[in-house]
Amino acid sequence: MYDTLITGGHLLTMQGDGVGFIRDGAVAIEGKEIVAVGPRDEVDSDAREIIDATDRLVMPGLVDAHMHSSAVLGRGWAQEVETWMASAYAPMLRHSNPAHAPLGTLLALIEGVMNGTTTFGDYNRPMNDLIQSHLQMGSRGVLCNGISALNWANREQWIAQGWQPGDPTPLDEETFQRTFQAEKQLHDEWDGHDDGRIKIIFGPHAADFLSREMLLEIQAEAQRRGALMHLHVAQDPRENNATLERYGLRAIPFLDSIGLLGPDLIAVHLSTATDEEVDLVAERGARMVCCSNSIGIIDGVMPPIARFKEHGGVAGLGSDQAPGNNSHNIFSEMRATAMYAKIAATSPLPMPAWSTLRSATIEGATVLGIGDRVGSLEVGKEADLIMLDLTQPPLLPVLLEPARNLVPNLVYAETGRNVTLSMVAGNIIYRDGHFANVDVAQVHRDVTAASAELQAATVDDELALGTPIVRLTRDGKI
Amino acid sequence: MYDTLITGGHLLTMQGDGVGFIRDGAVAIEGKEIVAVGPRDEVDSDAREIIDATDRLVMPGLVDAHMHSSAVLGRGWAQEVETWMASAYAPMLRHSNPAHAPLGTLLALIEGVMNGTTTFGDYNRPMNDLIQSHLQMGSRGVLCNGISALNWANREQWIAQGWQPGDPTPLDEETFQRTFQAEKQLHDEWDGHDDGRIKIIFGPHAADFLSREMLLEIQAEAQRRGALMHLHVAQDPRENNATLERYGLRAIPFLDSIGLLGPDLIAVHLSTATDEEVDLVAERGARMVCCSNSIGIIDGVMPPIARFKEHGGVAGLGSDQAPGNNSHNIFSEMRATAMYAKIAATSPLPMPAWSTLRSATIEGATVLGIGDRVGSLEVGKEADLIMLDLTQPPLLPVLLEPARNLVPNLVYAETGRNVTLSMVAGNIIYRDGHFANVDVAQVHRDVTAASAELQAATVDDELALGTPIVRLTRDGKI
Repeated sequence: MYDTLITGGHLLTMQGDGVGFIRDGAVAIEGKEIVAVGPRDEVDSDAREIIDATDRLVMPGLVDAHMHSSAVLGRGWAQEVETWMASAYAPMLRHSNPAHAPLGTLLALIEGVMNGTTTFGDYNRPMNDLIQSHLQMGSRGVLCNGISALNWANREQWIAQGWQPGDPTPLDEETFQRTFQAEKQLHDEWDGHDDGRIKIIFGPHAADFLSREMLLEIQAEAQRRGALMHLHVAQDPRENNATLERYGLRAIPFLDSIGLLGPDLIAVHLSTATDEEVDLVAERGARMVCCSNSIGIIDGVMPPIARFKEHGGVAGLGSDQAPGNNSHNIFSEMRATAMYAKIAATSPLPMPAWSTLRSATIEGATVLGIGDRVGSLEVGKEADLIMLDLTQPPLLPVLLEPARNLVPNLVYAETGRNVTLSMVAGNIIYRDGHFANVDVAQVHRDVTAASAELQAATVDDELALGTPIVRLTRDGKI
Repeated sequence: MYDTLITGGHLLTMQGDGVGFIRDGAVAIEGKEIVAVGPRDEVDSDAREIIDATDRLVMPGLVDAHMHSSAVLGRGWAQEVETWMASAYAPMLRHSNPAHAPLGTLLALIEGVMNGTTTFGDYNRPMNDLIQSHLQMGSRGVLCNGISALNWANREQWIAQGWQPGDPTPLDEETFQRTFQAEKQLHDEWDGHDDGRIKIIFGPHAADFLSREMLLEIQAEAQRRGALMHLHVAQDPRENNATLERYGLRAIPFLDSIGLLGPDLIAVHLSTATDEEVDLVAERGARMVCCSNSIGIIDGVMPPIARFKEHGGVAGLGSDQAPGNNSHNIFSEMRATAMYAKIAATSPLPMPAWSTLRSATIEGATVLGIGDRVGSLEVGKEADLIMLDLTQPPLLPVLLEPARNLVPNLVYAETGRNVTLSMVAGNIIYRDGHFANVDVAQVHRDVTAASAELQAATVDDELALGTPIVRLTRDGKI
């Protein structure tokens, strides 16, 4: 007798090299594991709990492979601006309150889970505190604290020494040691927690925010622990300028020259990479995360995911941060990724729906190093899955023969609204608008207070910088 | 005593040249008309029905300025294809059943209304039948039947005479007369129906599907009746080829040469227009509709709405058709329009949130010739408005001072899910997931049957044409 049987829905198992469609299928679960998956009449019907999936689609939970969860407290703060980091995002981050961070993370997870995400690749400080939100929600986390030698608190001092925005930022050994130490502690304490639901990886920030020696030290430590590295790569012209000045190479060739481009690297963004650099990252076997909405709103750029995948690379999708995106919704990322790739290429063909859906599921899981455990509905894998209502727009009508429209409509039309159930490791964490482990009304109240406090703390910086959102507000434009 | 008072929410009135934000406001309604709007303490609180808008945003209903509603029966049928019309959309249209068309329209209206649209610029045949769905839903319609001299039924005959896909299509006088007559009848019978909730305009299809004389005859008739013209303009290279061959001019210069480019023209798409042609259309005072998701998926092209607006043009947004889009959701169109414009220009600045929101509301209404009656919350206008929940992602948190994040989050994050109420001409047509006048469960059953029938009728054509969706299905990719 199974613990749970989900029966009568259509399945997208994501097995094989397509989407693994099964009409009128069933998924059986024991403990956290999938023990049977197939057409309904090939799966035993004896279970303690039977979930009727008639008129439902059952598929793997979505993977958000790169996000900065707690920044959601400043959602909608940072857009319509040419210098996003300097003029919009950094002024806020500088005043963010570590005590509020777990609250922001909880809100980001609420948004993700209600919209079908079950795994979060969260890159965020102070992770030792905000991991509590991941534990509470019951979602899967592949987490890091972030390691950096950048200390914005020294900015006035740099300026006194002649530093200007766009220049390479001075590196601070103490900041590096402190954040590196925090990452190691995080790994010691939490890696493998809750039977593997929480996994800790290492997060060197970027090639310009760490020295060669620091990067190599992090790599050695990560390898010793068997942990992946989660690194922003080619995210900004500033990064290329810094590595050129310090080592005579652009960021990607520099990373390659010190042996960092390899299968244990998660390379996020690649937005300033040349074609040859994209190909090099793919050839080295590093994994990519594409944050389409974030990089689109920040730079007006579509990252090179289509080229990366055509060259054999494995790529996932990420929501990045809500001040600049402005959401944590992988359905939005799917539509954006498929469509921006077409607009950037002036062709309807790049990033077809099936490839985009694979990036949001099995490829995203593979990028985070858990593709052997989740990302597809397969016997022996853990039961991370979602159900969607097929009786409502935009998934209605459902066509099955001779052509199916489910995958195109999931990618080009669905927004997350039709998600009715979300399960992680066999546990239902969301069903019909209700969260198993979170009081959303309380989060609403707490978040409202915390955001107001954050904004009040940031006001002076915003006014001094002429942050566009302040001017637009005064002009009655927003 | 008012009939209805909506009180305690934040308002985006869309008055003036921005978004007309009012904190803690109220809207009072008598009959179909707004009789007071302003801060709560400046509006009387005496009303038969009081709607508590605490933690809600109140704003004008969205305008879908161009759609082909009934085609939603083939949602998700047509993408990942270089020749969308010939290989994907036309095979389906050819077999569409006029008896099913009102059902498709009803489904499209359900999707639009649940996602905040209150006005639909529906371009669709046979409008004399499917207008019943607009009447039933209670939404506002600016409708046309479409006039064309193209008869796809003659296609085999053209081919026998040497015609090839991409060639100008032969014009059929009888088809023109029949569709023109239907449009006049539609206008006779329905224009101004239900105290103006239904408005009929004239829909010449495109410069290549009608001769010069036909276009001028339609224009004369429309002017006699005081009706706008709703015309696809510069939508396809084929159109330029046809007018070049027939009249020695590309489509837009040709239309200008016969006096069609003027304030009574709604010019849809402009996707193949040169910069100079875009400027010319704006200078002539014609209105534009931009269908970002549709043109993006069909051609990988972003229409020139940013340039058109910078040159003083008034532009609305449209969802076009669901086989190629794949939804009827103006929140999706807002995000797409703002983001595709940035990706196409490699800059974060084109189509800022406030301008995009204006195109979805007051400018969309102006495009359809009803900007004096709806599109903003203003005393004397009709009460077409929506409410959105501010206690849930992606509209949480709400920041108010010194900068507001509501408009960026509406445009860049909201999907329509947070819409809790929709009102047209003072009547509530949707509230908390329920439609006043439509049985959604019945529509689900009927649509499922009709779509299956449509697909069965189309199978042979699809197989003969090698429609990509059939191949992708067989390959297990979708």
